[in-house]
Amino acid sequence: MAGSLITLTSDFGVTDHFTGVMKGVIHSIAPRSTIVDITHLIPPFEILEGAFTIAASYRWFPKKTIHVVVVDPGVGSARRPVLIEAAGQYFIGPDNGVFSMVLAREKHKVRHLTAEQYRLQPVSETFHGRDIFAPAAAHLATGVPPANLGKLVHDPWVIAGLEPVRTGKRFWVGAVLRVDRFGNLITNYRVEEFPSVLSRPFELLAGLGRVSRLAATFSEGEPGELLVVPGSAGYFEVAANQASAAQKLGVTAGSPLELTLY
Amino acid sequence: MAGSLITLTSDFGVTDHFTGVMKGVIHSIAPRSTIVDITHLIPPFEILEGAFTIAASYRWFPKKTIHVVVVDPGVGSARRPVLIEAAGQYFIGPDNGVFSMVLAREKHKVRHLTAEQYRLQPVSETFHGRDIFAPAAAHLATGVPPANLGKLVHDPWVIAGLEPVRTGKRFWVGAVLRVDRFGNLITNYRVEEFPSVLSRPFELLAGLGRVSRLAATFSEGEPGELLVVPGSAGYFEVAANQASAAQKLGVTAGSPLELTLY
Amino acid sequence: MAGSLITLTSDFGVTDHFTGVMKGVIHSIAPRSTIVDITHLIPPFEILEGAFTIAASYRWFPKKTIHVVVVDPGVGSARRPVLIEAAGQYFIGPDNGVFSMVLAREKHKVRHLTAEQYRLQPVSETFHGRDIFAPAAAHLATGVPPANLGKLVHDPWVIAGLEPVRTGKRFWVGAVLRVDRFGNLITNYRVEEFPSVLSRPFELLAGLGRVSRLAATFSEGEPGELLVVPGSAGYFEVAANQASAAQKLGVTAGSPLELTLY
Repeated sequence: MAGSLITLTSDFGVTDHFTGVMKGVIHSIAPRSTIVDITHLIPPFEILEGAFTIAASYRWFPKKTIHVVVVDPGVGSARRPVLIEAAGQYFIGPDNGVFSMVLAREKHKVRHLTAEQYRLQPVSETFHGRDIFAPAAAHLATGVPPANLGKLVHDPWVIAGLEPVRTGKRFWVGAVLRVDRFGNLITNYRVEEFPSVLSRPFELLAGLGRVSRLAATFSEGEPGELLVVPGSAGYFEVAANQASAAQKLGVTAGSPLELTLY
Repeated sequence: MAGSLITLTSDFGVTDHFTGVMKGVIHSIAPRSTIVDITHLIPPFEILEGAFTIAASYRWFPKKTIHVVVVDPGVGSARRPVLIEAAGQYFIGPDNGVFSMVLAREKHKVRHLTAEQYRLQPVSETFHGRDIFAPAAAHLATGVPPANLGKLVHDPWVIAGLEPVRTGKRFWVGAVLRVDRFGNLITNYRVEEFPSVLSRPFELLAGLGRVSRLAATFSEGEPGELLVVPGSAGYFEVAANQASAAQKLGVTAGSPLELTLY
Repeated sequence: MAGSLITLTSDFGVTDHFTGVMKGVIHSIAPRSTIVDITHLIPPFEILEGAFTIAASYRWFPKKTIHVVVVDPGVGSARRPVLIEAAGQYFIGPDNGVFSMVLAREKHKVRHLTAEQYRLQPVSETFHGRDIFAPAAAHLATGVPPANLGKLVHDPWVIAGLEPVRTGKRFWVGAVLRVDRFGNLITNYRVEEFPSVLSRPFELLAGLGRVSRLAATFSEGEPGELLVVPGSAGYFEVAANQASAAQKLGVTAGSPLELTLY
């Protein structure tokens, strides 16, 4: 029998000892678990990018996977550590909005992680990834029931404004959720919410340019031509064939994207 | 019994969710498998650097290891997804030359991955790593026979010009295959093809400089002195003791290297 | 039963095949082992940063964990490969000071790794991580007794000057051990050696500035305010709330830090 699967997502970077220490803690408590890194290069403190990353990932993991997400500018302050049960999986991290997209999409139960016996003692003020989140994940992996880790709460933090806003009959203002390594812009226009883009003329204003060509793949069009592509994470993406759309358009995560449907 | 070993090599970078998603797919299908990242920092679309990386790696893995390599500028276009059996191991990825060095060195069988039941459905146009390559590797790991994944083909893509070209009785023109983290130049002069370099005077023209000193280790010579070293991947390397040869010489991957044997 | 846990720390970077090759070697010899990367982004040849990283990590791993650390500017030269038994764990790497902090803190036995049958043959001059250190770790993982790997030695290399130096009744000169991803300065002032900082007025001169505010967490104070925080690795850290202390102060690893206790 395989042990539990635990994923880690953070803004800890890959140059320090932080993620190694979390893995040491997990293996100390749950030696049979398997740990998968999603990324540790969420830009420091960028909760929204963390929220997108876990939302784009969890559906592809098996049931009962435990996802630990630590993007936590408020470590040591009053924000709650939480365990979320949703989509047959578990999510552990700070209650600061980093699970906003999971909470918006999935039925969920949220628990405030308060049980002292499932933390490392003493709990530091600066590294809850090690002292609270990793131990909670590891104890869950060994079979501790979620209810033992803390009581249900009903007001998890959800970031507002993650969806495009309709500003006219045929106009919306959305945003770039994330720029990926290839310079593709992942927008917050979900393919299933904006199916008209697939079948009708449209125009998307993005930074320095306008994009009106729909393509099925990044390799359509001339090299460098700007394309709107229904992306693999369920959102429309703006891409440039074998080039960086972000550079061509001068946009970054958070930049506005105005959509007109004709 | 340990499960199957699957390696991943790509140009996906380490900031996005892509590699995490591939691992989720693999663990969903083959929960007992162990995944090893070789690197995800192949420069975007640089098939040749991907080809070198997997060629420098596979010999050190156990029999039956499954190597997934995704450097795939043509995702969604007509290039074939393939499974290669060679050296007692498996190689999965696009048929775009990324396995050129493996194919040149080893006896091989190549299959076109066409079996729909071993793909995620629907297959996206933009993320075959998730929808075709990871599932193929995972099903292979669970014991699906290679023949079930697709039919044999006999014309895999092999990049031409990977070997140095003889341009005179004592002259060759080769190239830098890769610059490693330390600034060492991995050349395409294989030690076993150019054994004279080990025993006779030579001169290598590389960018701004000439190198004629052979050394057994990177720590010979004065700090900064340029050396030719028989490298650990089987190729001669140009190194500078505790300094970057690439910076000193002003060369990058692809730069020409002229060898004279006296 | 879970297999052995092996950690890897190096300056190999994450763009090359080096760490993948080491993992292939380990899995070939010890297929049941689990490998955890601590980091491969120790700056090239920076033994002191490697020493800090492993020292900040090992305590969080279970007994019998095998830590392989390869920061090895002298690969191929006369420095000895060693196996250290300390704190119920194992440490494998070059005898060049990279284990200085472990050796200073823990009772230890040190062995010179000389047994030819536990190396890959032939041993290259340039990649002892692959040919000596990874095989030693893997054989240890399969149950080979430490004594079979080499004889005890009693003069391991320990870097001098890792502790702050007292230069007056109330003055010390210490140093920055490491700058982490967030720009926090990890100092060489250990919390347990300088408990007065927690309770008395102090001043720390660091690069362009002075810091005299103690805080329990990085999120205290105004955004950007400089703070001294008892850090999670057991050292005082200099931080700036949601900003980079290193940038504000213009310091890097190795920069001096003058402490005055009032």
